[in-house]
Amino acid sequence: MASKFPEVQGGGSLIIAWQVKSKNVLVVGGGEVAAGRILHALNADAQVTVVCPVSGLNEEVAFRVSEGQVTHIDRNFEPTDLEGADMVLCAIDDPDASTQVWRLCKEKRIPANIADVPSECDFYFGSVHRDGPLQVMVSTNGNGPKLASIVRKKIAETLPDSMGAAIDNVGKLRKKLREVAPNPQEGPKRMKWHVQRPTLISSYPN
Amino acid sequence: MASKFPEVQGGGSLIIAWQVKSKNVLVVGGGEVAAGRILHALNADAQVTVVCPVSGLNEEVAFRVSEGQVTHIDRNFEPTDLEGADMVLCAIDDPDASTQVWRLCKEKRIPANIADVPSECDFYFGSVHRDGPLQVMVSTNGNGPKLASIVRKKIAETLPDSMGAAIDNVGKLRKKLREVAPNPQEGPKRMKWHVQRPTLISSYPN
Repeated sequence: MASKFPEVQGGGSLIIAWQVKSKNVLVVGGGEVAAGRILHALNADAQVTVVCPVSGLNEEVAFRVSEGQVTHIDRNFEPTDLEGADMVLCAIDDPDASTQVWRLCKEKRIPANIADVPSECDFYFGSVHRDGPLQVMVSTNGNGPKLASIVRKKIAETLPDSMGAAIDNVGKLRKKLREVAPNPQEGPKRMKWHVQRPTLISSYPN
Repeated sequence: MASKFPEVQGGGSLIIAWQVKSKNVLVVGGGEVAAGRILHALNADAQVTVVCPVSGLNEEVAFRVSEGQVTHIDRNFEPTDLEGADMVLCAIDDPDASTQVWRLCKEKRIPANIADVPSECDFYFGSVHRDGPLQVMVSTNGNGPKLASIVRKKIAETLPDSMGAAIDNVGKLRKKLREVAPNPQEGPKRMKWHVQRPTLISSYPN
Protein backbone atom coordinates (compact mmCIF):
# COMPACT_ATOMS: atom_id res chain seq x y z
CA MET A 1 0.00 0.00 0.00
CA ALA A 2 1.38 3.38 -0.94
CA SER A 3 1.98 5.67 2.02
CA LYS A 4 1.96 9.42 1.95
CA PHE A 5 5.61 9.45 2.96
CA PRO A 6 8.54 9.27 0.56
CA GLU A 7 9.36 5.72 -0.36
CA VAL A 8 12.85 4.49 0.51
CA GLN A 9 15.02 4.20 -2.62
CA GLY A 10 18.01 2.09 -1.58
CA GLY A 11 21.27 1.73 -3.43
CA GLY A 12 22.43 5.30 -2.99
CA SER A 13 25.22 6.90 -1.02
CA LEU A 14 24.94 9.45 1.74
CA ILE A 15 26.19 12.48 -0.14
CA ILE A 16 27.61 14.99 2.29
CA ALA A 17 29.68 18.15 2.32
CA TRP A 18 32.61 17.24 4.56
CA GLN A 19 34.16 20.17 6.41
CA VAL A 20 37.93 20.05 6.07
CA LYS A 21 38.69 23.75 6.54
CA SER A 22 42.00 23.93 8.44
CA LYS A 23 41.86 20.17 8.98
CA ASN A 24 44.84 17.94 8.20
CA VAL A 25 44.34 15.92 5.05
CA LEU A 26 47.09 13.43 4.29
CA VAL A 27 47.50 12.46 0.65
CA VAL A 28 49.57 9.32 0.11
CA GLY A 29 51.04 9.33 -3.38
CA GLY A 30 51.88 12.06 -5.87
CA GLY A 31 50.60 10.95 -9.27
CA GLU A 32 47.65 12.08 -11.39
CA VAL A 33 45.00 10.65 -9.07
CA ALA A 34 46.69 12.22 -6.06
CA ALA A 35 46.78 15.55 -7.93
CA GLY A 36 42.99 15.44 -8.27
CA ARG A 37 42.57 14.60 -4.59
CA ILE A 38 44.89 17.43 -3.59
CA LEU A 39 42.92 19.96 -5.64
CA HIS A 40 39.63 18.78 -4.10
CA ALA A 41 41.09 19.15 -0.60
CA LEU A 42 42.64 22.57 -1.29
CA ASN A 43 39.36 23.82 -2.76
CA ALA A 44 37.82 22.95 0.60
CA ASP A 45 40.54 24.88 2.49
CA ALA A 46 42.23 21.84 4.00
CA GLN A 47 45.82 21.75 5.25
CA VAL A 48 47.24 19.21 2.85
CA THR A 49 50.31 17.05 3.40
CA VAL A 50 51.58 14.89 0.55
CA VAL A 51 53.80 11.93 1.34
CA CYS A 52 55.62 10.65 -1.75
CA PRO A 53 59.23 10.46 -2.89
CA VAL A 54 60.03 13.53 -4.96
CA SER A 55 60.74 11.27 -7.94
CA GLY A 56 57.08 10.15 -7.84
CA LEU A 57 55.54 13.62 -7.97
CA ASN A 58 53.82 14.53 -11.19
CA GLU A 59 54.14 18.00 -12.62
CA GLU A 60 50.97 19.36 -10.99
CA VAL A 61 51.80 18.02 -7.53
CA ALA A 62 55.39 19.26 -7.84
CA PHE A 63 53.97 22.69 -8.77
CA ARG A 64 51.73 22.76 -5.68
CA VAL A 65 54.67 21.73 -3.49
CA SER A 66 56.89 24.45 -4.98
CA GLU A 67 54.15 27.06 -4.49
CA GLY A 68 53.81 26.08 -0.83
CA GLN A 69 50.17 25.07 -1.34
CA VAL A 70 50.87 21.71 0.31
CA THR A 71 53.41 20.30 2.76
CA HIS A 72 55.62 17.65 1.22
CA ILE A 73 57.21 14.62 2.90
CA ASP A 74 59.82 13.27 0.49
CA ARG A 75 59.60 9.51 1.11
CA ASN A 76 57.16 6.62 1.08
CA PHE A 77 54.34 6.44 3.61
CA GLU A 78 55.16 5.53 7.21
CA PRO A 79 52.58 4.81 9.92
CA THR A 80 53.68 7.85 11.95
CA ASP A 81 52.38 10.03 9.09
CA LEU A 82 48.88 9.35 10.41
CA GLU A 83 49.51 11.27 13.63
CA GLY A 84 47.25 14.29 13.57
CA ALA A 85 45.63 13.34 10.26
CA ASP A 86 41.90 14.08 10.09
CA MET A 87 41.42 12.37 6.73
CA VAL A 88 43.55 10.18 4.48
CA LEU A 89 43.40 9.99 0.68
CA CYS A 90 45.60 7.23 -0.68
CA ALA A 91 46.44 7.01 -4.39
CA ILE A 92 49.39 4.73 -4.95
CA ASP A 93 49.86 1.81 -7.34
CA ASP A 94 50.70 -0.68 -4.58
CA PRO A 95 47.75 -2.78 -3.36
CA ASP A 96 49.61 -4.14 -0.29
CA ALA A 97 50.83 -0.76 0.86
CA SER A 98 47.32 0.67 0.22
CA THR A 99 45.73 -2.01 2.35
CA GLN A 100 48.17 -1.26 5.14
CA VAL A 101 47.23 2.43 5.00
CA TRP A 102 43.53 1.49 5.10
CA ARG A 103 43.95 -0.85 8.10
CA LEU A 104 45.90 1.70 10.09
CA CYS A 105 43.28 4.36 9.32
CA LYS A 106 40.51 2.07 10.54
CA GLU A 107 42.43 1.29 13.75
CA LYS A 108 42.76 5.01 14.38
CA ARG A 109 39.23 5.77 13.10
CA ILE A 110 40.47 8.18 10.46
CA PRO A 111 38.11 8.59 7.48
CA ALA A 112 39.92 7.28 4.41
CA ASN A 113 39.62 6.72 0.68
CA ILE A 114 41.92 4.22 -1.01
CA ALA A 115 41.71 5.07 -4.70
CA ASP A 116 40.49 2.26 -6.90
CA VAL A 117 39.70 -0.08 -3.96
CA PRO A 118 35.96 0.38 -3.28
CA SER A 119 36.05 -2.02 -0.34
CA GLU A 120 38.71 0.13 1.33
CA CYS A 121 36.84 3.41 1.20
CA ASP A 122 34.70 5.17 3.79
CA PHE A 123 33.61 7.43 0.95
CA TYR A 124 33.90 7.89 -2.78
CA PHE A 125 34.48 10.98 -4.83
CA GLY A 126 32.22 12.12 -7.61
CA SER A 127 32.37 14.59 -10.41
CA VAL A 128 32.04 18.14 -9.05
CA HIS A 129 30.91 21.34 -10.75
CA ARG A 130 32.05 24.48 -8.98
CA ASP A 131 30.87 28.07 -9.39
CA GLY A 132 31.90 30.25 -6.46
CA PRO A 133 29.97 29.11 -3.38
CA LEU A 134 27.92 26.66 -5.45
CA GLN A 135 29.02 23.04 -5.67
CA VAL A 136 27.13 20.37 -7.55
CA MET A 137 28.32 16.80 -7.14
CA VAL A 138 27.30 13.97 -9.43
CA SER A 139 27.53 10.37 -8.33
CA THR A 140 26.45 7.35 -10.36
CA ASN A 141 27.06 5.05 -7.39
CA GLY A 142 29.67 3.02 -9.16
CA ASN A 143 27.89 2.66 -12.50
CA GLY A 144 30.27 4.74 -14.57
CA PRO A 145 32.69 7.58 -13.84
CA LYS A 146 32.58 8.69 -17.46
CA LEU A 147 28.81 9.13 -17.22
CA ALA A 148 29.14 11.14 -14.01
CA SER A 149 31.47 13.46 -15.87
CA ILE A 150 29.03 13.78 -18.78
CA VAL A 151 26.12 14.57 -16.44
CA ARG A 152 28.25 17.13 -14.59
CA LYS A 153 29.12 18.88 -17.86
CA LYS A 154 25.48 18.90 -18.90
CA ILE A 155 24.51 20.48 -15.58
CA ALA A 156 27.29 23.04 -15.87
CA GLU A 157 26.03 24.04 -19.35
CA THR A 158 22.48 24.40 -18.08
CA LEU A 159 23.05 26.52 -14.99
CA PRO A 160 23.17 30.26 -15.65
CA ASP A 161 26.68 31.72 -15.46
CA SER A 162 25.44 34.15 -12.86
CA MET A 163 24.33 31.44 -10.42
CA GLY A 164 27.47 31.52 -8.26
CA ALA A 165 27.37 35.31 -8.01
CA ALA A 166 23.63 35.25 -7.19
CA ILE A 167 24.24 32.79 -4.35
CA ASP A 168 27.06 34.98 -3.10
CA ASN A 169 24.68 37.93 -2.97
CA VAL A 170 22.02 36.00 -1.09
CA GLY A 171 24.67 34.93 1.38
CA LYS A 172 25.69 38.54 1.94
CA LEU A 173 22.06 39.58 2.48
CA ARG A 174 21.58 36.76 4.98
CA LYS A 175 24.68 37.88 6.83
CA LYS A 176 23.45 41.48 6.96
CA LEU A 177 20.07 40.31 8.19
CA ARG A 178 21.79 38.47 11.02
CA GLU A 179 23.66 41.65 11.96
CA VAL A 180 20.43 43.63 12.05
CA ALA A 181 18.51 40.95 13.92
CA PRO A 182 21.08 38.86 15.77
CA ASN A 183 19.78 35.99 17.83
CA PRO A 184 22.45 33.67 19.11
CA GLN A 185 19.94 31.34 20.82
CA GLU A 186 17.89 30.78 17.71
CA GLY A 187 18.69 27.07 17.37
CA PRO A 188 15.25 25.79 18.31
CA LYS A 189 13.56 28.51 16.28
CA ARG A 190 15.53 27.68 13.20
CA MET A 191 14.64 24.05 13.72
CA LYS A 192 11.04 25.21 13.59
CA TRP A 193 11.81 27.17 10.47
CA HIS A 194 12.73 23.86 8.86
CA VAL A 195 9.52 22.34 10.00
CA GLN A 196 7.39 25.05 8.46
CA ARG A 197 8.90 24.39 5.05
CA PRO A 198 8.13 20.77 4.34
CA THR A 199 9.36 20.94 0.74
CA LEU A 200 12.84 21.85 1.91
CA ILE A 201 14.64 18.64 2.73
CA SER A 202 18.05 20.18 3.05
CA SER A 203 19.40 21.52 6.31
CA TYR A 204 21.09 24.79 7.06
CA PRO A 205 23.85 25.36 6.23
CA ASN A 206 24.23 23.89 2.82
CA MET B 1 51.41 34.37 -12.99
CA ALA B 2 48.84 31.97 -14.38
CA SER B 3 49.93 28.35 -14.30
CA LYS B 4 48.72 25.60 -16.55
CA PHE B 5 47.25 23.79 -13.55
CA PRO B 6 43.78 24.40 -12.12
CA GLU B 7 43.78 27.31 -9.73
CA VAL B 8 42.72 26.59 -6.16
CA GLN B 9 39.22 27.92 -5.44
CA GLY B 10 38.90 27.90 -1.65
CA GLY B 11 35.71 28.21 0.33
CA GLY B 12 34.17 24.93 -0.78
CA SER B 13 33.45 21.69 0.99
CA LEU B 14 34.81 18.27 0.23
CA ILE B 15 31.70 16.73 -1.27
CA ILE B 16 31.83 12.98 -0.91
CA ALA B 17 29.59 9.96 -1.24
CA TRP B 18 29.77 8.36 2.20
CA GLN B 19 29.27 4.60 2.24
CA VAL B 20 26.80 3.67 4.96
CA LYS B 21 25.51 0.41 3.48
CA SER B 22 24.85 -1.92 6.45
CA LYS B 23 26.56 0.59 8.75
CA ASN B 24 24.93 1.73 11.97
CA VAL B 25 23.57 5.24 11.75
CA LEU B 26 22.16 6.64 14.98
CA VAL B 27 19.56 9.38 14.63
CA VAL B 28 18.95 11.35 17.82
CA GLY B 29 15.49 12.92 17.71
CA GLY B 30 12.30 12.09 15.87
CA GLY B 31 10.92 15.35 14.45
CA GLU B 32 10.77 16.72 10.91
CA VAL B 33 14.50 17.27 10.59
CA ALA B 34 15.19 13.77 11.92
CA ALA B 35 12.68 12.40 9.39
CA GLY B 36 14.74 13.90 6.56
CA ARG B 37 17.97 12.50 7.99
CA ILE B 38 16.39 9.05 8.34
CA LEU B 39 15.25 9.03 4.72
CA HIS B 40 18.73 10.06 3.52
CA ALA B 41 20.30 7.25 5.56
CA LEU B 42 17.75 4.63 4.44
CA ASN B 43 18.24 5.64 0.80
CA ALA B 44 21.91 4.79 1.32
CA ASP B 45 21.06 1.36 2.81
CA ALA B 46 22.13 2.18 6.35
CA GLN B 47 20.94 0.34 9.46
CA VAL B 48 19.15 3.18 11.19
CA THR B 49 18.41 3.45 14.90
CA VAL B 50 16.26 6.31 16.15
CA VAL B 51 16.48 7.32 19.80
CA CYS B 52 13.54 9.50 20.84
CA PRO B 53 10.61 9.14 23.24
CA VAL B 54 7.61 7.82 21.30
CA SER B 55 5.74 11.03 22.14
CA GLY B 56 8.36 12.98 20.17
CA LEU B 57 8.06 11.01 16.93
CA ASN B 58 6.43 12.80 14.06
CA GLU B 59 4.08 10.95 11.75
CA GLU B 60 6.70 10.01 9.18
CA VAL B 61 9.19 8.70 11.74
CA ALA B 62 6.41 6.79 13.54
CA PHE B 63 5.47 5.27 10.17
CA ARG B 64 9.05 4.12 9.51
CA VAL B 65 9.23 2.65 13.02
CA SER B 66 5.94 0.79 12.54
CA GLU B 67 7.09 -0.54 9.16
CA GLY B 68 10.30 -1.86 10.72
CA GLN B 69 12.41 0.35 8.47
CA VAL B 70 14.29 1.65 11.53
CA THR B 71 15.04 0.41 15.03
CA HIS B 72 13.45 2.56 17.71
CA ILE B 73 14.71 3.29 21.22
CA ASP B 74 11.84 4.88 23.13
CA ARG B 75 13.63 7.35 25.40
CA ASN B 76 16.01 10.30 25.29
CA PHE B 77 19.62 9.87 24.20
CA GLU B 78 22.05 8.16 26.55
CA PRO B 79 25.82 7.91 25.98
CA THR B 80 25.65 4.12 25.68
CA ASP B 81 23.65 4.61 22.47
CA LEU B 82 26.92 5.47 20.76
CA GLU B 83 28.28 1.94 21.17
CA GLY B 84 28.62 0.47 17.69
CA ALA B 85 27.44 3.65 15.97
CA ASP B 86 29.32 4.42 12.74
CA MET B 87 27.69 7.83 12.26
CA VAL B 88 25.47 10.08 14.36
CA LEU B 89 22.84 12.52 13.08
CA CYS B 90 21.41 14.64 15.87
CA ALA B 91 18.25 16.72 15.37
CA ILE B 92 16.83 17.79 18.71
CA ASP B 93 15.73 21.20 19.97
CA ASP B 94 18.07 21.13 22.97
CA PRO B 95 21.41 22.92 22.46
CA ASP B 96 22.99 21.52 25.65
CA ALA B 97 22.02 17.93 24.94
CA SER B 98 23.17 18.40 21.31
CA THR B 99 26.55 19.65 22.45
CA GLN B 100 26.90 16.64 24.74
CA VAL B 101 26.18 14.31 21.82
CA TRP B 102 28.77 16.15 19.70
CA ARG B 103 31.46 15.98 22.38
CA LEU B 104 30.93 12.28 22.98
CA CYS B 105 31.07 11.63 19.22
CA LYS B 106 34.35 13.50 18.98
CA GLU B 107 35.82 11.55 21.91
CA LYS B 108 34.88 8.34 20.15
CA ARG B 109 35.81 9.68 16.70
CA ILE B 110 32.35 9.02 15.30
CA PRO B 111 31.43 11.25 12.32
CA ALA B 112 28.53 13.45 13.39
CA ASN B 113 26.16 16.17 12.24
CA ILE B 114 24.35 18.26 14.83
CA ALA B 115 21.48 19.88 12.93
CA ASP B 116 21.51 23.66 12.97
CA VAL B 117 24.89 23.91 14.75
CA PRO B 118 27.48 24.36 11.97
CA SER B 119 30.37 24.38 14.44
CA GLU B 120 29.30 20.95 15.68
CA CYS B 121 29.27 19.19 12.34
CA ASP B 122 31.88 17.07 10.59
CA PHE B 123 29.73 17.42 7.51
CA TYR B 124 26.65 19.19 6.19
CA PHE B 125 23.79 17.91 4.10
CA GLY B 126 22.73 19.46 0.84
CA SER B 127 19.78 19.24 -1.46
CA VAL B 128 19.83 15.91 -3.32
CA HIS B 129 18.23 14.89 -6.63
CA ARG B 130 17.84 11.16 -7.05
CA ASP B 131 17.09 9.13 -10.17
CA GLY B 132 17.92 5.45 -9.73
CA PRO B 133 21.69 5.11 -9.41
CA LEU B 134 22.19 8.80 -10.17
CA GLN B 135 22.53 11.25 -7.30
CA VAL B 136 23.14 14.96 -7.76
CA MET B 137 23.87 16.98 -4.63
CA VAL B 138 23.72 20.76 -4.49
CA SER B 139 25.57 22.71 -1.82
CA THR B 140 25.73 26.49 -1.53
CA ASN B 141 28.28 26.24 1.28
CA GLY B 142 26.07 27.96 3.80
CA ASN B 143 24.81 30.76 1.56
CA GLY B 144 21.20 29.68 1.37
CA PRO B 145 19.37 26.37 1.73
CA LYS B 146 16.41 27.71 -0.24
CA LEU B 147 18.69 28.44 -3.19
CA ALA B 148 20.20 24.96 -3.03
CA SER B 149 16.69 23.60 -3.30
CA ILE B 150 15.90 25.85 -6.28
CA VAL B 151 19.11 24.83 -8.07
CA ARG B 152 18.36 21.16 -7.41
CA LYS B 153 14.88 21.50 -8.89
CA LYS B 154 16.28 23.27 -11.94
CA ILE B 155 18.79 20.47 -12.45
CA ALA B 156 16.08 17.83 -12.03
CA GLU B 157 13.96 19.55 -14.71
CA THR B 158 16.92 19.69 -17.09
CA LEU B 159 18.15 16.12 -16.88
CA PRO B 160 16.39 13.69 -19.23
CA ASP B 161 13.95 11.37 -17.47
CA SER B 162 15.84 8.42 -18.91
CA MET B 163 19.16 9.37 -17.30
CA GLY B 164 18.84 7.02 -14.32
CA ALA B 165 17.87 4.10 -16.55
CA ALA B 166 20.73 4.87 -18.97
CA ILE B 167 23.24 4.83 -16.11
CA ASP B 168 21.76 1.56 -14.90
CA ASN B 169 22.32 0.06 -18.35
CA VAL B 170 25.92 1.25 -18.53
CA GLY B 171 26.49 -0.27 -15.09
CA LYS B 172 25.14 -3.62 -16.30
CA LEU B 173 27.37 -3.50 -19.37
CA ARG B 174 30.41 -2.75 -17.22
CA LYS B 175 29.54 -5.67 -14.98
CA LYS B 176 29.22 -8.01 -17.96
CA LEU B 177 32.52 -6.77 -19.32
CA ARG B 178 34.16 -7.63 -16.00
CA GLU B 179 32.70 -11.14 -16.20
CA VAL B 180 34.07 -11.61 -19.69
CA ALA B 181 37.45 -10.11 -18.85
CA PRO B 182 37.91 -10.50 -15.11
CA ASN B 183 41.11 -9.18 -13.65
CA PRO B 184 41.13 -9.02 -9.87
CA GLN B 185 44.62 -7.51 -9.76
CA GLU B 186 43.77 -4.62 -12.05
CA GLY B 187 44.21 -1.89 -9.43
CA PRO B 188 47.36 -0.41 -10.90
CA LYS B 189 45.99 -0.71 -14.42
CA ARG B 190 42.81 1.13 -13.54
CA MET B 191 44.92 3.78 -11.89
CA LYS B 192 46.60 4.15 -15.27
CA TRP B 193 43.21 4.32 -16.90
CA HIS B 194 42.56 7.41 -14.84
CA VAL B 195 45.83 8.89 -15.86
CA GLN B 196 45.12 8.49 -19.54
CA ARG B 197 41.94 10.53 -19.23
CA PRO B 198 43.05 13.87 -17.88
CA THR B 199 39.60 15.47 -18.30
CA LEU B 200 38.12 12.97 -15.88
CA ILE B 201 38.68 14.29 -12.38
CA SER B 202 36.39 11.84 -10.68
CA SER B 203 37.56 8.51 -9.38
CA TYR B 204 36.12 5.06 -9.83
CA PRO B 205 33.64 4.21 -8.44
CA ASN B 206 31.35 7.15 -8.48
